Amino acid sequence: MNANPMPRIMKQQKKSFSTRNETRRVKIRGVPIGGGTRVTVQSMLSVPTSDIERALGQIRELASAGCDIIRLAIRDRDAVEAFREIRSCVDLPLVADIHFDHRLAILAAEAGADKLRINPGNIGSDAKVREVASAALEYGIPIRIGVNAGSLPEKLARNEPTAEKMVEAARMEIEPLLESGFQDIVVSLKSHDPAMTIAANVLFAENFDLPLHIGVTEAGLPDVGAVRSAVGIGSLLISGIGDTIRVSLTGDPVEEVVVGKRILRACGLLKRGVELVSCPTCGRCRVDLIGVANEISRRLPQIEKYIQVAIMGCEVNGPGEAKMADVGIAGGNGYFLLFKKGKVIEKVPQEAVVERLLVEIEELAAVSDD
Amino acid sequence: MNANPMPRIMKQQKKSFSTRNETRRVKIRGVPIGGGTRVTVQSMLSVPTSDIERALGQIRELASAGCDIIRLAIRDRDAVEAFREIRSCVDLPLVADIHFDHRLAILAAEAGADKLRINPGNIGSDAKVREVASAALEYGIPIRIGVNAGSLPEKLARNEPTAEKMVEAARMEIEPLLESGFQDIVVSLKSHDPAMTIAANVLFAENFDLPLHIGVTEAGLPDVGAVRSAVGIGSLLISGIGDTIRVSLTGDPVEEVVVGKRILRACGLLKRGVELVSCPTCGRCRVDLIGVANEISRRLPQIEKYIQVAIMGCEVNGPGEAKMADVGIAGGNGYFLLFKKGKVIEKVPQEAVVERLLVEIEELAAVSDD
Repeated sequence: MNANPMPRIMKQQKKSFSTRNETRRVKIRGVPIGGGTRVTVQSMLSVPTSDIERALGQIRELASAGCDIIRLAIRDRDAVEAFREIRSCVDLPLVADIHFDHRLAILAAEAGADKLRINPGNIGSDAKVREVASAALEYGIPIRIGVNAGSLPEKLARNEPTAEKMVEAARMEIEPLLESGFQDIVVSLKSHDPAMTIAANVLFAENFDLPLHIGVTEAGLPDVGAVRSAVGIGSLLISGIGDTIRVSLTGDPVEEVVVGKRILRACGLLKRGVELVSCPTCGRCRVDLIGVANEISRRLPQIEKYIQVAIMGCEVNGPGEAKMADVGIAGGNGYFLLFKKGKVIEKVPQEAVVERLLVEIEELAAVSDD
Repeated sequence: MNANPMPRIMKQQKKSFSTRNETRRVKIRGVPIGGGTRVTVQSMLSVPTSDIERALGQIRELASAGCDIIRLAIRDRDAVEAFREIRSCVDLPLVADIHFDHRLAILAAEAGADKLRINPGNIGSDAKVREVASAALEYGIPIRIGVNAGSLPEKLARNEPTAEKMVEAARMEIEPLLESGFQDIVVSLKSHDPAMTIAANVLFAENFDLPLHIGVTEAGLPDVGAVRSAVGIGSLLISGIGDTIRVSLTGDPVEEVVVGKRILRACGLLKRGVELVSCPTCGRCRVDLIGVANEISRRLPQIEKYIQVAIMGCEVNGPGEAKMADVGIAGGNGYFLLFKKGKVIEKVPQEAVVERLLVEIEELAAVSDD
């Protein structure tokens, strides 16, 4: 056992925890992906693209939830025409998702798509991919090469999928694109298995500098899917890999955006609004901490400024966390100590603490940082 | 750009994705932690230890949820006496959690604690730690050195906590224990920040072979806390670090166990029962996939055998995922293809698919693997 706590490896670790992997940058209707810019959150419509009214309704909901980029399935020519009309009504970047028929990708580019997503597992020959690239070049839009473990190209699909096969599927499509002079490429490598997703993306990032769209595909119903996505996407983001994310949940796409933002926050990549640190309580706790935390959470103001708030039950970690936060409370016997910017400023009875803390949060939100 | 997809680094990556970090093994009332055994799930009572009836009720709920090890706060001598009585009524391993007063740890050992948790930030001098170790040795129980970023020892607590300070706090307590001949040590290094939690545990694992209890402390209310915990705990487990886990949520401790098991499953460390892979649906989908997935999820049998079930909406990833699963369905236009062990066995109308799939799952569950 080596008891020296500061080994050489930490320099590398520190680097990997604090810096983003260097990638090229592409733009989707002015929204940048890659090159160290902020990590964007994507989702995909679950309603049919050809049902224009419902599609526009879901786009409005996703936009309100803070979705940055929205994808729509283009399964036939009717969908292309619907896409054209939807595109004309919306400001957000819209991505056309095409499988099987490369001609739909070309039509979608002409119909105003801001990015094309094609799948190496089903789009066909290099010649077809080059045709798509030539349309993308003409309309000045990027292409995402979207590899899924569940739909690898036939010659790779024998036996089980692996991270290596997923990267190879991407490479097979990237090379003809690059050779044809097309460079505006985003890549995704998704498996339903978080570990395989991580391994594929790590391998890819070691070999290519193209921006990565990351996600755990088919992660399942929201409760389980949020955890699976957080493990896969979070591991990659924490180690610096990933330029845009999509959480795949069997449910309302708005929930995908909510979970996506939670993952970004957990990884320190979204510092906006109020962040609560709150303890699990234990037998030491002599206040109704869970009740207080829930009520504060429900009543939090929607603000842009990043404010850390600690809601703590006792004297063990309470003072430490409350001091580190912008504002915090640490429970005693039926009361809380109120901390602001590292100092105790008041002793507040439990029944008054929610109102008191909300006032402090509003005040902090109103103060300019400059 | 290097286009070679099989670089040297993958050998290391593969290793780190598939193998667990080597640690020593300790036993908590016969339940092993470390040394490559299964990763256990812990939680902590939120009711006062001295309220014996409520404590026993919460222990029963946690046991039913599959909690492996349960911790109780020992804040005073009344709690020690209550702990003694609770210990006599319960089979599961019970851990006594002590802060500030090392004499309570000694009394808890005598009262039947299966493990002691002490905090380097508040337990006091080396001499006191040695007294605790001598009681632990006498009663044959391990000690967890539980470092929290929010309660670092005073001489380390100046300014902001860091991963290095957290490891240093653990080292300061481990060394006197090892010098006194005490080796049954588990260590935890928790921050509310997943990135700092990960960095501290990676640094520790590079330097010590003691088993690690991992968790993101004070992760918050259940929805947000599950994501924060999955990012922190999941990143570590996927890279082979972590021998036992505790999810800290501001809510019912049973929810901590549920989320803990979801994290283990997402990391491939709990292969038991039915695992659903289900797609997010999109504009291609012509079945009520979300309805089918929810109904199947609600009606899943509680089984021990590990069975993968794919519930997929369309022809893109549907056939691939359904083939890879033990049993799966891939949607067409108002119907599903039913796959079993890689082959299509039937075309089932949507209204019959839930019953049909449940029959297949029950049949698979009934078949012995031998």
